[in-house]
Amino acid sequence: MILTVTLNTALDITHSLAALRPFAANRPHTVAQRAGGKGVNVSRVLHALGQETEATGLVGGLTGVAVRGDLEASGLTDRMLRIDAETRRTVAVVDDGVGDTTTLLEPGPVVGPQEWTAFLEHFEALLRGAAAVVLSGSLPRGVPSDAYAVLVRMAHDHDLPTVVDTEGEALRAALTARPELVKPNQDELAATTGLTDPVAAARSLRADGAGTVVASLGARGLIALTPQGDWHAYPPRRLIGNPTGAGDAAVAALALGMVAGTPWRERLAEAVALSAAAVAAPLAGDVDLAVHRRLRPLVHVEPLRSLTACP
Amino acid sequence: MILTVTLNTALDITHSLAALRPFAANRPHTVAQRAGGKGVNVSRVLHALGQETEATGLVGGLTGVAVRGDLEASGLTDRMLRIDAETRRTVAVVDDGVGDTTTLLEPGPVVGPQEWTAFLEHFEALLRGAAAVVLSGSLPRGVPSDAYAVLVRMAHDHDLPTVVDTEGEALRAALTARPELVKPNQDELAATTGLTDPVAAARSLRADGAGTVVASLGARGLIALTPQGDWHAYPPRRLIGNPTGAGDAAVAALALGMVAGTPWRERLAEAVALSAAAVAAPLAGDVDLAVHRRLRPLVHVEPLRSLTACP
Repeated sequence: MILTVTLNTALDITHSLAALRPFAANRPHTVAQRAGGKGVNVSRVLHALGQETEATGLVGGLTGVAVRGDLEASGLTDRMLRIDAETRRTVAVVDDGVGDTTTLLEPGPVVGPQEWTAFLEHFEALLRGAAAVVLSGSLPRGVPSDAYAVLVRMAHDHDLPTVVDTEGEALRAALTARPELVKPNQDELAATTGLTDPVAAARSLRADGAGTVVASLGARGLIALTPQGDWHAYPPRRLIGNPTGAGDAAVAALALGMVAGTPWRERLAEAVALSAAAVAAPLAGDVDLAVHRRLRPLVHVEPLRSLTACP
Repeated sequence: MILTVTLNTALDITHSLAALRPFAANRPHTVAQRAGGKGVNVSRVLHALGQETEATGLVGGLTGVAVRGDLEASGLTDRMLRIDAETRRTVAVVDDGVGDTTTLLEPGPVVGPQEWTAFLEHFEALLRGAAAVVLSGSLPRGVPSDAYAVLVRMAHDHDLPTVVDTEGEALRAALTARPELVKPNQDELAATTGLTDPVAAARSLRADGAGTVVASLGARGLIALTPQGDWHAYPPRRLIGNPTGAGDAAVAALALGMVAGTPWRERLAEAVALSAAAVAAPLAGDVDLAVHRRLRPLVHVEPLRSLTACP
């Protein structure tokens, strides 16, 4: 079982409308909502692949009840811990005409110190059934900035490998606990290290404690700096669709590869194909399994030389 | 007790941010939410004035639970009826820089035929304790288009006067039951009658069955065409603030005047002063009672001549 952790869960609301008019009354023709947050998306992808996963994190208020209701409706194993403050909402306003999205991201709850202590106990119990742990997304207010370092160390005490997908201070602090894999995207890499060259930035994260760094570079695929060598993996052609959730699909593939011990080339090809399958599906957390099957044998994986030579 | 009816209640969410950036990720610095819908706002104003009021209507799902939670927190008497489908949300995105608001209005629930029948029974029971009935806002899908006509007739069977604040087909259908007062704004008047001159439009609504028409003309105040004469009432100066909810405050004043039988000039002065007090308060449904007291003696009420002569 792969345990995913989403400390700042969300109710993701999608409003679709013909054209967004700023400073006017807009009437979405379609409203959808589902449980969100990066770890929840990872569990959703694992579940779609028929893999065992449990989703933990913090949920509160009526928005938290709505999140849990959707986890159940989606067939995901809900291991969330209840807190007092209200879970955040995100509103994605999809403009049919422009084909682009405006998002409103609420700041999320403030977690109390006793709630954080209770989560650590709750997490400890869940580790007993896990084969790997995925820690994803931002930290809500009130959670200590070294939260991921603490959780990685607890996982290590159970001999469990960890994937950390976050950025900035939360990622830097996590490195002190030497997580097996971190997966920033290009912007997160730059924001966390201050370095614009992704290879140099990824090297600096390894030097600071990450076992492996897999960085997602959007349409250019992934680069991976691992103890066994460095690779660049990329899809056969540029993909069109919704990139939200593509990184979460890559994390799902990387966590599965970690548990199975598959060679890096296979692991990375799987991560690129599953990312592409997420781009092809309209909602974050969904994957188009037909796209995954079709693209899987076509993914290029090459030893990492210079990124300037990439397609 | 004044009974307000909000068939299409809402959870009104307000996101405040420094500057709205379309097609980007926006992070509101403040999130607020409260029970909404025009009838709920009317009850809120009546409650602020220390008047007895009960709020009925339809609520469903977790959003309905949130609406009821806020009614209780606001000290309003909750007489809502539960339905299966989820109550709608509205999201108001307030841009601190521009000082203007972008709204997203969800379409709202579909009401089942048995649910509508159950509401009629529920409404009938509530009429026994009422002195007047206020019917406000749009009709949710599934509710018959002559819903307000049916509710006005039921109120009349109990000798209760009615105020209807809606537009278009719902308003036209309501006129057949001869409500005592209808209160469209300038846009609603035009949309309902096809006439751009507000006085001509108001006359046509009276001809079609409205006892009195009070039309709100924004900064120009109110015009009233009543069985006792026609007036124009307006504030001493142009007011700055949030006009959402100003119409609901006017309705609250007009319903109170109807129950007390105050002369039209007083009733209209009160409606203008209370509207101004709503404009001065940042949230729809709130009134600034100090502004109300200060402006009340300064409101102009004149026999209605020609609107072109208005300030």
